[in-house]
Amino acid sequence: VGEQRRKLGIIGGMGPEATVYFMHRVIELTPATRDQDHIDMLVSNHVSIPDRSAFIRGQASESPLEDLLADARMLAEQGCEVLAIPCNTSHVFYDTIAQAVDAQVLNIVDESLAACKARGAQKVGVLATWGTLITDIYGSRAKELGVACQYPRPTIQEAVNEAIYDYVKAGKPVPDEMLVGFYDGMAAMGCDAVVLGCTELSVAHAALSGEVRAAYPFVVDSLEALAAACVRECA
Amino acid sequence: VGEQRRKLGIIGGMGPEATVYFMHRVIELTPATRDQDHIDMLVSNHVSIPDRSAFIRGQASESPLEDLLADARMLAEQGCEVLAIPCNTSHVFYDTIAQAVDAQVLNIVDESLAACKARGAQKVGVLATWGTLITDIYGSRAKELGVACQYPRPTIQEAVNEAIYDYVKAGKPVPDEMLVGFYDGMAAMGCDAVVLGCTELSVAHAALSGEVRAAYPFVVDSLEALAAACVRECA
Repeated sequence: VGEQRRKLGIIGGMGPEATVYFMHRVIELTPATRDQDHIDMLVSNHVSIPDRSAFIRGQASESPLEDLLADARMLAEQGCEVLAIPCNTSHVFYDTIAQAVDAQVLNIVDESLAACKARGAQKVGVLATWGTLITDIYGSRAKELGVACQYPRPTIQEAVNEAIYDYVKAGKPVPDEMLVGFYDGMAAMGCDAVVLGCTELSVAHAALSGEVRAAYPFVVDSLEALAAACVRECA
Repeated sequence: VGEQRRKLGIIGGMGPEATVYFMHRVIELTPATRDQDHIDMLVSNHVSIPDRSAFIRGQASESPLEDLLADARMLAEQGCEVLAIPCNTSHVFYDTIAQAVDAQVLNIVDESLAACKARGAQKVGVLATWGTLITDIYGSRAKELGVACQYPRPTIQEAVNEAIYDYVKAGKPVPDEMLVGFYDGMAAMGCDAVVLGCTELSVAHAALSGEVRAAYPFVVDSLEALAAACVRECA
């Protein structure tokens, strides 16, 4: 309080509920007793950005990159010194975005894997979109950190993608047994940490009862890791 | 879907939780089955704007007007055709802001009173900050609509202000009996509608159980009225 805070820019809308939940977590993690103690944010809830995973899979021809770059530049021009992108799949473009702007761009993959490593994890299961899997953004970073990375088998991965697109993005609650089934499956494959590597899964996980969440302490939420990094860098 | 949607600009951060809850309600009220069906938003979660009510009461010398105008102009320049300000107290500056930009600026007071009138209310109780009461922005609009406007007695008003500043803005839950006591008090004064005329009270009201909320169907939430107007104008 009283110190200089850095303005946070958020490239969001991928999807919109995840962006809102992300802002909520940044606000909750910031020590504050009045409005002015919080972090100033400028948030592009840019829902019309072309679908990231569909583009990577070759199911759609329109690239999201131009919109991502335009938002990053606009936010930096409006005084944001730190940028966050609460969408894992977009991070295949991380280097291009980070090089394009005069601002610190946080990396959700690095923050999530660092959180896993801080817990002593040796084999990290990753639940994410097909786009995030195909580009192996978790696997390549994990290798650098000396952590093993495990993706689900293709049939399970199809179900994970369905939870993201046909449930969360469609505004429907993900059934508890579906989500918990993913966690159990990764544990059975020997994972000692499971990353929610898609912010739509963070929204679904937050909707579980506190009791169910407590039964899965090995779940590491990428949205939570990024929110904590924002508070660390801005507040 | 497929039609042209208008980009929504939000002058927010007053307070931050109210802005997040407001975005959440706009998203929930928008018919959508994928990200791209939603409304593009640019959100200034501008928490460092000087306190509105303190300025109006003469307790602080710094005016919030310059920041509000700068945000409105920036959002309009960035392509927002519709602007919303999820903060009732700020609406004392409504005319100045609306005249300063080439965009449609929604008015939370008008939307809330229209919702009261649509329900056939004849005497509207207003729960708001001291700043909103002193400037009588609800009373003057209500008179034009032919609706009576009732404010709480000063001792109760002091408690309403305390719920806003010492509870919601301080990150503490408002006790149920405090909030419900305000509603009962306005009913006892003959009000057939009670407007939550401060978006911090909307956050507190949303935290009540569904059962308690159902017992007070005469409560009209200004944040909800403004969110519905955004969907009406943008989607």
